[in-house]
Amino acid sequence: MTELKNDRFLKALLREPVDRTPIWMMRQAGRYLPEYRASRATAGSFMDLCMNADFACEVTMQPLERYPLDAAILFSDILTIPDAMDLGLYFETGEGPKFKKVVRTEADVDALPIVNTASDLSYVTKAVSTIRHELNGRVPLIGFSGSPWTLATYMVEGGSSKDFRHVKAMMYNQPEVMHRMLDKLALSVIDYLNAQIMAGAQAVQIFDTWGGVLSHAAYQEFSLKYMQQIVDGLIREHEGRRVPVILFTKGAGQWLESMANTGCDALGIDWTTDLGNARARVGSKVALQGNMDPSVLYASPKRIREEVASILASYGHGTGQVFNLGHGIHQFVDPEHAKAFIEAVVELSPQYHK
Amino acid sequence: MTELKNDRFLKALLREPVDRTPIWMMRQAGRYLPEYRASRATAGSFMDLCMNADFACEVTMQPLERYPLDAAILFSDILTIPDAMDLGLYFETGEGPKFKKVVRTEADVDALPIVNTASDLSYVTKAVSTIRHELNGRVPLIGFSGSPWTLATYMVEGGSSKDFRHVKAMMYNQPEVMHRMLDKLALSVIDYLNAQIMAGAQAVQIFDTWGGVLSHAAYQEFSLKYMQQIVDGLIREHEGRRVPVILFTKGAGQWLESMANTGCDALGIDWTTDLGNARARVGSKVALQGNMDPSVLYASPKRIREEVASILASYGHGTGQVFNLGHGIHQFVDPEHAKAFIEAVVELSPQYHK
Repeated sequence: MTELKNDRFLKALLREPVDRTPIWMMRQAGRYLPEYRASRATAGSFMDLCMNADFACEVTMQPLERYPLDAAILFSDILTIPDAMDLGLYFETGEGPKFKKVVRTEADVDALPIVNTASDLSYVTKAVSTIRHELNGRVPLIGFSGSPWTLATYMVEGGSSKDFRHVKAMMYNQPEVMHRMLDKLALSVIDYLNAQIMAGAQAVQIFDTWGGVLSHAAYQEFSLKYMQQIVDGLIREHEGRRVPVILFTKGAGQWLESMANTGCDALGIDWTTDLGNARARVGSKVALQGNMDPSVLYASPKRIREEVASILASYGHGTGQVFNLGHGIHQFVDPEHAKAFIEAVVELSPQYHK
Repeated sequence: MTELKNDRFLKALLREPVDRTPIWMMRQAGRYLPEYRASRATAGSFMDLCMNADFACEVTMQPLERYPLDAAILFSDILTIPDAMDLGLYFETGEGPKFKKVVRTEADVDALPIVNTASDLSYVTKAVSTIRHELNGRVPLIGFSGSPWTLATYMVEGGSSKDFRHVKAMMYNQPEVMHRMLDKLALSVIDYLNAQIMAGAQAVQIFDTWGGVLSHAAYQEFSLKYMQQIVDGLIREHEGRRVPVILFTKGAGQWLESMANTGCDALGIDWTTDLGNARARVGSKVALQGNMDPSVLYASPKRIREEVASILASYGHGTGQVFNLGHGIHQFVDPEHAKAFIEAVVELSPQYHK
């Protein structure tokens, strides 16, 4: 494999010294970029982009051409696994993802297969190896998956939800059925992420978008437990390097300690948590990735720069931070504002690494 | 005024000894009750219910007829103040509240009046006094308002929002304009809640539904600051009794200490926070109200009872807890499940007060 020319992202995740704070943005290959919208118009649907390795590679590279980012992330969707379970993922314009089949009963859960990436999701590993080849050592490539709990919410509700009525009813009324479903999902995710690592992903992130809607106790039992199982099952070293694992639960500011105890390398932090406080609590165990409110990108470049300065100061001196937004970049953001954000990190962070 | 026959709610809010943990439910007069749906069908729209004191009184009393609740809450909406600012509140079937006019510019903010309850919202104080008379001392009556920040989100976005794009852009780009708006709202809320207290409300709650979408720093500056201003401006004693103030920010588990420092009497806690942990942090300053996940009411009565037992055990012995859900009761809940919930609190809590 080609030597990595920029490894400050991987180093910071392992809390090794770096020259400046590395940065990437969740959903950095996304609708806010006109070149992405053009590619998508050519490819057809969102899933057409995901399923064609050349298109997936093309859009993955787009933000790297514009900005001095320190990592690329596989272009894909968190719902590839439920789709491979034959639930029929589809997208309607202006709405979130939906499934043709929902999982509501014990029989539905028992009928779910454990997904085999090699046979069922080869388009994803093909995209990983294509992108890795195209990157040619420029920056590391991040692989990812949804968390079992987050995937389960879409599978039971049949799409996005506001109150998570059906999935919570299943969780509270039939906890053993829910556990069987989450176990199948965890085994599928382990296989999926390991396949991505073997295909060339140099770090992996687990997106637990909906763990934060759970109670303190239910989070531990129904979300974190299965992320722990995944962390335990992942290939942690490949190509002679450690493959860092990042756990990101949106809304988990109160639960950072238990997340850090899973043995993951880093935590994704949303903007409701003060980064200095998070570092004081778990910074001796894990790196921290985050955490600017994506809505700050609607503000002026001057204001964006102030916010970056404030987050850098909050984290303080030394390694262990990966700069990012606290959630995916919004589609209406001006690409020039994203540029101001990234350049502010590049320019303002070196003083914290002297 | 008639003597209060059941004052355990008010006592618990002031952390005075009680015989059992008092309970009420946010949105207890709501669509999950068939008698509510019947009243609403007769009255017309949701706002027709709010604006007619007899209807508002009728639906306020409905849950008290069914369940052994320890408090009544004024039937109204949090958006009465923006409506009185002439923004044109309306509801479309199956959607959230909307406004005909939005507040997006400095000129829009400067044009906003400070609401005078006596002249602009007399239907609310009339409802309060009608309900208070009808209660006849049975349980205390809670008055309420939205928080300035939460009201501002609806006024700037023109309704509900997912990403709070416009209101956050205003906050980050024109903080001084946002502060002027929030100050007008805080002054309006003070007048509104004091008018409710003078009309008979015996406790008040400030609903900060959307404070939790802010960053740690922005929450302090744009939401909590104005709740502090309100706490400072409220009538705290009336009819020879203290009028307790409850602050409820959804998603504020990380910020309880600063909320408790406002001088309020109690904090509303959502289900993401462990109640025992919250008590250890702020229980010497404030009472705690909450915090069962409303979705537990989709589970079986047996499971509901287990969850109540677990929350009571988490809080532990002694006064200072008001049992509630962590958010409003959902419309699809079976009223028999709400009954099981309330009865579990009534039956299981006395042991913690011996």
